[in-house]
Amino acid sequence: MDDSYFMSQAIEEAKKGLAEGGIPIGSILVKNGLIIGRGHNQRVQHDSVIHHAEMNCLETAGRLTAKDYKDCTIYTTLSPCPMCSGAILLYKIPRVVIGENQTYMGDEAHLKDQGVELTVLRNQECVQLMQDFIKEQPALWNEDISV
Amino acid sequence: MDDSYFMSQAIEEAKKGLAEGGIPIGSILVKNGLIIGRGHNQRVQHDSVIHHAEMNCLETAGRLTAKDYKDCTIYTTLSPCPMCSGAILLYKIPRVVIGENQTYMGDEAHLKDQGVELTVLRNQECVQLMQDFIKEQPALWNEDISV
Repeated sequence: MDDSYFMSQAIEEAKKGLAEGGIPIGSILVKNGLIIGRGHNQRVQHDSVIHHAEMNCLETAGRLTAKDYKDCTIYTTLSPCPMCSGAILLYKIPRVVIGENQTYMGDEAHLKDQGVELTVLRNQECVQLMQDFIKEQPALWNEDISV
Repeated sequence: MDDSYFMSQAIEEAKKGLAEGGIPIGSILVKNGLIIGRGHNQRVQHDSVIHHAEMNCLETAGRLTAKDYKDCTIYTTLSPCPMCSGAILLYKIPRVVIGENQTYMGDEAHLKDQGVELTVLRNQECVQLMQDFIKEQPALWNEDISV
């Protein structure tokens, strides 16, 4: 079970979101090699402005202690926006694996400043999912990142 | 309708949370002088790790455009944590009115760096709500800020 496997699981979540008519971004929370949370963007499905993929993933993982989060890595198909970056900082998750940051660059600078370890995989399937989606639904994507 | 009035509404939300057995932090979203969202921390009530007061408030306000958020001020009884600060940055809410930051200092530095206007009211009712709560439920408070 390596970064590539866990990213494939985050991509599965992104595809679930797409199949539901939503924005194809997925996320997985892994603790000591086990998936303990998974989620995808819920803007369309639940008219949610806070359930970005990473947030939805953290919510499904449930209430954990600070000690639990210290052993976690969060995987996300797209660079985490300021809100999701902030959630990662609140819960002091030490490592983030990012599918791609070519389509959108989140608040990686702030995460790095605060000592979070970032790995960017430059995964082409993640890029393609977003590029195809943005071509189809530009307004929805702009709403999701508030531009 | 001034900051003091809107903060009293955020305090009402905090008290609703307390009456439900939850963490007494409340928030209000105001657009052009009208309250368009309100919420309070839902960690206990819904076992939520993402519905901090400000997040719950943004969620109840619903899906808005970037143009809408530009005309908003968010009121919160307690200094916004990194997650809530990140949500404020994602949605580019230009002004935050904070009840108090004596009990807990959120990511005000990052908000200021990004040009958000902050007003801290040093409201003693907000301080008292938190001090009483933390005395009663220290573990719950630590969980909420992940320490």
